[in-house]
Amino acid sequence: LKAKNSLAIKAAFVYNKQIMKSGFFIGIDLGGTNLKLALIDAKFRIKQRRLFNTRGFPDKSSLIRNIVLEVRQLMKDNRLTRKDILGVGMGLPGPVDYERGIVHFLPNIPGWEEVSLKSILEKRLGLPVVLDNDAKLMSLAEYTLGAARGARSAVCLTLGTGVGAGLVFDGRLYRGAGNVSGEIGHLPLNEDGPRCNCGGWACLEAYIGNRSIESRARTILGKNISLEELSRLASRGNRLALQVWSEVGSRLGLALAAVVNLLNPDCIVIGGGIAKAHRRLFERLKEVIAQRAMSVPAGQVKIFKAKLASDAGMIGAAILVKEAQR
Amino acid sequence: LKAKNSLAIKAAFVYNKQIMKSGFFIGIDLGGTNLKLALIDAKFRIKQRRLFNTRGFPDKSSLIRNIVLEVRQLMKDNRLTRKDILGVGMGLPGPVDYERGIVHFLPNIPGWEEVSLKSILEKRLGLPVVLDNDAKLMSLAEYTLGAARGARSAVCLTLGTGVGAGLVFDGRLYRGAGNVSGEIGHLPLNEDGPRCNCGGWACLEAYIGNRSIESRARTILGKNISLEELSRLASRGNRLALQVWSEVGSRLGLALAAVVNLLNPDCIVIGGGIAKAHRRLFERLKEVIAQRAMSVPAGQVKIFKAKLASDAGMIGAAILVKEAQR
Repeated sequence: LKAKNSLAIKAAFVYNKQIMKSGFFIGIDLGGTNLKLALIDAKFRIKQRRLFNTRGFPDKSSLIRNIVLEVRQLMKDNRLTRKDILGVGMGLPGPVDYERGIVHFLPNIPGWEEVSLKSILEKRLGLPVVLDNDAKLMSLAEYTLGAARGARSAVCLTLGTGVGAGLVFDGRLYRGAGNVSGEIGHLPLNEDGPRCNCGGWACLEAYIGNRSIESRARTILGKNISLEELSRLASRGNRLALQVWSEVGSRLGLALAAVVNLLNPDCIVIGGGIAKAHRRLFERLKEVIAQRAMSVPAGQVKIFKAKLASDAGMIGAAILVKEAQR
Repeated sequence: LKAKNSLAIKAAFVYNKQIMKSGFFIGIDLGGTNLKLALIDAKFRIKQRRLFNTRGFPDKSSLIRNIVLEVRQLMKDNRLTRKDILGVGMGLPGPVDYERGIVHFLPNIPGWEEVSLKSILEKRLGLPVVLDNDAKLMSLAEYTLGAARGARSAVCLTLGTGVGAGLVFDGRLYRGAGNVSGEIGHLPLNEDGPRCNCGGWACLEAYIGNRSIESRARTILGKNISLEELSRLASRGNRLALQVWSEVGSRLGLALAAVVNLLNPDCIVIGGGIAKAHRRLFERLKEVIAQRAMSVPAGQVKIFKAKLASDAGMIGAAILVKEAQR
């Protein structure tokens, strides 16, 4: 009898694994620039993807309508029915009430205020939907499958127009009281300093957000220049371009020294557009961490570039679905 | 049969509760000034306490010898044997390897370098011993029984000669990669600023550690003055004394704005000697958080004074014993 039971349990286990294998996720990543969707398998590999320009949608309703159509299309293209889909995960560029599935607002996409997006999508799709902030999903992806894999505690940054982070402590995403933790872009670097969009001043983002870097480059080099060009110039040894990246590295390094002393993380992952910056930035930020952070935690932290690039948001959305169903 | 089983289970439960009730902890708190020991019951109430001047012991060995004697005395006074003691918990003012029970060093007590204190005490006492950093134990106590009780995530500060914090996230003490998280005293407040003991500069502690406040008071008031006197003068409306407390509040508020944006905690608990400072400090730090932190997390955080005062370390040590045995 015992042997028979054990066989039955084994069979059930294999059967469950089969179901897991045959299940798929839909990962959605809404950004200020792009709307990305993907069909993702149970091992978090992307099977098919769709990309749209966010600004191509005149309003919120047409954007939501398109998401619904595209999810259905991904299922149709792959001959999948609802029972094949484990759930839909979606990242949004702003504060999200994760538990109730409400988007509070999106700083860079007008017309989104207190939108019950989870229930809207669930009703139209007939599938379970989970939402979260994009920096949190990116960090979940980098922690589970990317640069921070194997670490216990990680701080994962996304650097672009906005500067944000996701925090994973002892293996779990840390959300904070209202799911708005990780606003490293609004860490003050000085008692006095330049005004920031958030209403405060001297915030990290006010120094190293893309627009601030461009403006600083304009001042120092005397012309309008893109960040790609600024990196190219630096690679050719242009002293002024190197100076701009060095300044950015100093400011980022100071914020990371604060993070290292406060949180003693195993690793810090740097992603977003700026991860393509000239290496001077990374050299300089490591120097500043060594100077300004305490020796024990500074010696323990590893600094990595993000691995999953622009897929991190969608993959993180799939991981969120899985975590939510545990 | 079912009813009988359920009764048996109930009886076992009551019996276990009985055992828990009759068990005791020994809580020890070693500081730069005082060595405190207490017998603590299973509900974390202090039954008997002992206090010594840390500087009264010529060296490490005599201090350890005294701890062993005093633990035995506490047991003897209360007619307890080893089996009545659930364990010994101890807090130390410096970095501790919690898992291996090693004290790395104590900035304010010379002669402690890589001391395997856990195994030394366990051998001599024949009791289980756990060690941790004092700020972590204070925060564990405030979180479990003090000002942060009922919160999900809390940052608990101790302000004195040194400035440290303990972090409790989603109900668990967060230690970091090497158990040195929470060094809020070494959060840089400016790109440039006064030298700090840690080797860095412009750290919070370099502005608001007790010695820095005393030195600032000397500059502004033109005489040597204790912090108690400084509070008394401020209470009588002395403009210069109020200015000093206002400056301290501004600096602490800026560091807390960083903490609020990064960690979105439910509450911040302020303890240590400075908690007795003039209320101008607390008014000013709340103003600065409102100015410099983002509105959502700033609206969610509550600022409390610590509740357990100088017992927090010993009580936290007892809680640590209990957590370690779970």
